[in-house]
Formats: sequence, structure tokens, C-alpha cells
Amino acid sequence: MYTLFFSPNACSLASHIALAESGLPYELKRLKFAENEQRSDAYLKINPKGRVPALATDRGVITETVAILAFIAQAAPEAKLAPLDDPFLFARMQAFNAYIASTVHVASAHYRRHARWADNQSSFEDMMAKAPKNVHECFQLIEDDFLEGPYVLGEAYSVADPYLYLMTGWLANLKLDRADFPKVSAHYDLMKQRPAVQRAETEQMAVS
Amino acid sequence: MYTLFFSPNACSLASHIALAESGLPYELKRLKFAENEQRSDAYLKINPKGRVPALATDRGVITETVAILAFIAQAAPEAKLAPLDDPFLFARMQAFNAYIASTVHVASAHYRRHARWADNQSSFEDMMAKAPKNVHECFQLIEDDFLEGPYVLGEAYSVADPYLYLMTGWLANLKLDRADFPKVSAHYDLMKQRPAVQRAETEQMAVS
Repeated sequence: MYTLFFSPNACSLASHIALAESGLPYELKRLKFAENEQRSDAYLKINPKGRVPALATDRGVITETVAILAFIAQAAPEAKLAPLDDPFLFARMQAFNAYIASTVHVASAHYRRHARWADNQSSFEDMMAKAPKNVHECFQLIEDDFLEGPYVLGEAYSVADPYLYLMTGWLANLKLDRADFPKVSAHYDLMKQRPAVQRAETEQMAVS
Repeated sequence: MYTLFFSPNACSLASHIALAESGLPYELKRLKFAENEQRSDAYLKINPKGRVPALATDRGVITETVAILAFIAQAAPEAKLAPLDDPFLFARMQAFNAYIASTVHVASAHYRRHARWADNQSSFEDMMAKAPKNVHECFQLIEDDFLEGPYVLGEAYSVADPYLYLMTGWLANLKLDRADFPKVSAHYDLMKQRPAVQRAETEQMAVS
């Protein structure tokens, strides 16, 4: 049994969808960000970073979306969630996920989580003004260069897809329109139809 | 033959050390950041992100340190640079690398690369004041929770080690003292003794 620590529509949704695709047994623990539960003593013992996602396994906890996604794919090889037998394609998938984690998510976080990196209100406003431009630039690269279509790696679905789906869903938070990116938009619509996506989104609303 | 695109002492050093450990044949191409070569048309065709590292293989280019490090380990299994047969330990290694990439490197980048996320001088000064505190906090977590010792994963060396080594070497840029972190410091000293580290650092100085 795996336990995913999540917050609704946080980046943990990507790992949640991957779990739903995998066929692995899992349960969910919701952290209430409004009550700062991710910084509680109990949770810091699970994940000292005080962030989601964290995936508890019978051998210990795994953090970081990039690592969790690859782990789920490796733990459920029959679900074919990654090109496990091809190190080059696996690296391409990982490069996509690492770009989301360390560039796109970070660019997006400067819109609402700017207090991580500065202290003054004027800096926050400066970052908020720039964040949508940075995220737009990232999505232009994804549209032009990284999204093979229909899935990230082409015909084969992989755990890069829920990560892109999540990030596309966040565009509206920055007042960006996914219609500016036709391939990304088509990917989003395709993902919406997957039962695992519907299951994960329904589950996230159901867990109190 | 692999070709690593690098800039001296940039984060590409981690991939360079991993290549030197791997026994794989490689050559180096230096990008002159002072001349903005990473944004040249020629390089943007190789890596549209305009960043280092990029690893050219006979099947195409791989970007992102997290992906390149895992790829090198998988491409040279006999070098034992990752726990390839244990998805849980592999995920632990990847989680460490993903934390460096998307949190520690990002925190550090707010010291010198703040113009990525804001436009005003006052914001830059705000970020520069906060960056050393954030990086210090990251290294405290590494010291207390993530670095098993003597290597990141314990007794076994892995491609997480050159990434930590690189990041420890950057502490002085932010006027932080690695002596504040005894385990991290011991790791740095241990790494300095490895022939692959010495080879990579010598090669970086030799390539013009």
C-alpha cells in the first residue's frame, strides 16, 4: 500500500494521476494548506521539506514529483507508464519532467509563492508582473519543441503527461489562455478523457 | 561518443564528473557565457532552452542535470553510479537530485540570476539579501536529513554525489561557509580526492 500526501490541485495531482494509472494500491492523506498542516511537526517527520507531494512506501518516504513519477512507473512496469527499457527515451521523459519541476513550476511559483525568495511588497509585485511572461515563454517552448503529440513522448503515454496536464491547468491562475498553445490544449483535452484523470480529480474533491 | 556542452563551474560540472566516473567516451564543448554563446542560434538548435548542460548522444540531445545524471548511470551500468536494480533507492537518489535542481539551485540562482524572475533593481537587492538564508536552510536539511554519509546514499557512491559536490562548491559565492555543515564538508573533501573529480576540473580549465 502506498500513501500519497497531497493538497487539492497542488503539484501532487501529477503523482495522484500516475498512481491512478498504475494499478498500484494507494490511499490519500490530504494536507490542509489553509491550516499550514504541511508545516506541522507530524508532517515534517514524514517530509522535512514541508511540501507536497510525499509518497510513503513500506520502505520509507519518497519526495519530489520527478522522483515519484519515475518510481511509480518502475513499480508498475505492466502499466507501461515510462519507456523503462530504453535509457535514452527514459532520459527524454525525465528531462521533460525536470524542466517542469525546476523551470516551469518555479516560474509559476513566483506569482503566488514569491515570499519564498524575497521579503518586500514591491518585489512581490515585480515578480507577479513577470511570472506570466516567463510561464508563457516556457509553454511556447513546450508547444514548439518538447511536446511530440498527442502525448509528450509521442504515441506512447508516460508519466510526463499528468505533469504537463497539471501545469496546463494552472495557466488560468496566471491569467494565461491555453488556447495560445494548440498542441498543449489538445493534450489537455485528451488527458481530461482518461479515466485515471477523472478518478484522481474526483478523489481529490472527496477527501476531506 | 557523447558530447557535453558546458560552462566552467556551472551546474554542468556535475554531469561532467559523472561522465568521468562512467568510463563512457566523451568530448567537451565549452560555451562562453561572457559572449552569450548559450543564446546563439547554433546552440539554440541543440538546446532551445539556452542553458547548460546538454548531452549530445547518437540518438539526440538530453538536457536537465537530473535526467543526464540518471542517463549516464543507466548507460554505464558496470560503473555502478546508481542503484539501478532497486526502484526505491533509485527514487531516493532522484529525489535528492530533484531537490538540488528545483529548490537548492533555484534558491542559489536568486543571488546572481535574479533578473530571470523580476525587473527592478530593488527586487534584485531583496532577492540577493534572502538567497543566502534560503541556501543555508537547504543545506541544513541536507546535513540533518538527506546526506546519509559518507556519500549521499550511504556507503555507495552515486550520481547524487557530484551534484552535491558542485552545489557545496558554490556556497562561497553566497558568502556561506561549508564548515557550518560538518557532514557536507566531509563529503566535499572526500569528493576532492576522487580521480574523476580531479580529471573533470582539470579538463574544464583546459578547454578554451
